[in-house]
Amino acid sequence: MTGYVSGEQPQETGWVKLNTNENPYPPSPHVAEAVQKVVSSCRVNVYPDALATPFRNAIGKQFNIDPDWVLPANGSDENLTILMRTFVDEGESIASPYPSYILYETLAKLQNATFERLQLDANWSFQSDRDQQIIDRCKLLFLPNPNSPSGTLWKEEEFLPLVPPCGLLILDGAYADFCDEPIGFEVLHSQKGKQIVITRTLSKSYSLAGIRFGYAVAHPDLIAGMRKVKDSYNCDLLSMTAAVAAIEDHEWMVTNSNKIRKTRSSLTTALRELGFHVLDSQANFVWITHATKQHQHIYEQLKTKKILVRYMVYPHAEMTSPEPLEGLRITVGTDEQITQLLDALREII
Amino acid sequence: MTGYVSGEQPQETGWVKLNTNENPYPPSPHVAEAVQKVVSSCRVNVYPDALATPFRNAIGKQFNIDPDWVLPANGSDENLTILMRTFVDEGESIASPYPSYILYETLAKLQNATFERLQLDANWSFQSDRDQQIIDRCKLLFLPNPNSPSGTLWKEEEFLPLVPPCGLLILDGAYADFCDEPIGFEVLHSQKGKQIVITRTLSKSYSLAGIRFGYAVAHPDLIAGMRKVKDSYNCDLLSMTAAVAAIEDHEWMVTNSNKIRKTRSSLTTALRELGFHVLDSQANFVWITHATKQHQHIYEQLKTKKILVRYMVYPHAEMTSPEPLEGLRITVGTDEQITQLLDALREII
Repeated sequence: MTGYVSGEQPQETGWVKLNTNENPYPPSPHVAEAVQKVVSSCRVNVYPDALATPFRNAIGKQFNIDPDWVLPANGSDENLTILMRTFVDEGESIASPYPSYILYETLAKLQNATFERLQLDANWSFQSDRDQQIIDRCKLLFLPNPNSPSGTLWKEEEFLPLVPPCGLLILDGAYADFCDEPIGFEVLHSQKGKQIVITRTLSKSYSLAGIRFGYAVAHPDLIAGMRKVKDSYNCDLLSMTAAVAAIEDHEWMVTNSNKIRKTRSSLTTALRELGFHVLDSQANFVWITHATKQHQHIYEQLKTKKILVRYMVYPHAEMTSPEPLEGLRITVGTDEQITQLLDALREII
Repeated sequence: MTGYVSGEQPQETGWVKLNTNENPYPPSPHVAEAVQKVVSSCRVNVYPDALATPFRNAIGKQFNIDPDWVLPANGSDENLTILMRTFVDEGESIASPYPSYILYETLAKLQNATFERLQLDANWSFQSDRDQQIIDRCKLLFLPNPNSPSGTLWKEEEFLPLVPPCGLLILDGAYADFCDEPIGFEVLHSQKGKQIVITRTLSKSYSLAGIRFGYAVAHPDLIAGMRKVKDSYNCDLLSMTAAVAAIEDHEWMVTNSNKIRKTRSSLTTALRELGFHVLDSQANFVWITHATKQHQHIYEQLKTKKILVRYMVYPHAEMTSPEPLEGLRITVGTDEQITQLLDALREII
């Protein structure tokens, strides 16, 4: 099998990087202060707290959640892997919408599980009636909300019918902090709440993709099961210290998120003026298509100008069948980066 | 199932912690310098290098290894999990010596694999002839070398016959840097080298248990398979930066290791004078038993004096059958810590 292929990550500087949904703004200055202090303490040579208790307490305080509902992880990726390994046996079925985040399919293969697609219609909506059998038999249904690459958000009345009768709905909230209306964890206390796991990451909204830190929130019975599967010390001292400092400076994250939402709005308008079809996004990226221009050509031309965006192809998309769905996913950068992008696009198109 | 239970990790200060084989000396001062620099750079908000290339290059330079032979991981634990997930399917068999590191058995359960014990004899040696069938059918044979809890080291002529004909021998070298004769990676170029994976950690000899960093060394074909299974960005920027700085200050590690070996020698002598049976150790801990005293009682008495050692029971050990094997595993701390331990033991016994 082939592994998951993530977006290009040039390690040299000089790129306008709008391809992997990183935050263009730096994290809270408290992050560096806290890490600089702890790394010279006498705690680096001993094992870290196995349950990352300081982080769970910080989340508990910030969102009024019992820390026993929280599982910190080495990036949200690790929690997705832990979910697979905890709840899915070989040959069992997992599902996710399509087009969506393709990692879920790779994770299913790694677990020798069956992967089934919930084909979205042209409005990026579910066809739940048609797909009820898939929902009924799957153990885990992964739902990025907002979705990638579309940036669209499903409401509770759209996703609650997707909770598998004998399984779990995983709400992957990697981009939740970029929504116009903040999304909390209240749905976990709804009637189906014991069958829902919410995953979050500090990579995007907290500007900390480099430190690999994410967390899951769910009923303590589910969290306890996942704890048994995780590596004993899955979160290191330095990243956890950074993560705690970031969560405690919530205001910093909100300020950056507001800037990104403002830029997203102007970017959307400008791209439409250039003739692109642009979905209204609730994430820190926009999904654009063009009726006549070649998406791959635009991607390659931008790359020659050291601007990276993500050219994506979904060969199995029924919404455009028999043609594959393709388009460009563009991260919302700073206003300066977006001006560079738009100038380049005007030359290319 | 129950998860793996690691040693006690009190988070408050004031303990003499001799229970989880941490290094009592601080890491190289270059570690803190490097981390303090990178955490305030513009690199924390972007994804880290997915292959941890700077670390692979540092290992390559230090040990004269091609970086394609190296897989960095979020602690050696992660590499053990990656090995299981890459090479073992549900129902297949894995094996390890017994008594040994009990995590392997937990990992097998998590993978729904069969776990089989290679029972060690009273000299902590293999009974390969008797156990040939187990060796023949296992996909992975995990061998900590030096072993835990014994601290004993197997020579090549003892472990090469254990390479499974259709599987891999995993040499877990967590404690390799504490051997009187340094152990390198030459065995990977032996006739059976393509069926051997060596895992190492920076937790013990490099005094970095807090940062979670380990690596595997093996033929690039094996490493390539493992890369497909690992999470895309399994090593974070901060830990990788710390790890590179530590590897590059090899001399610092060797100096600390020499101090520990010296203390190990005096500790061994003193414990024998107190009436304990002490195995000659090649690791940063010693395994002790007492013919007449209760091990659990000694452990508990030490704990009341805020000294933590590891009380271990191996219920299935044939070497002491029908009795379980039990004893105390004591980490080699500083000379001051060992003086405290010995004073306490003199009171207890």
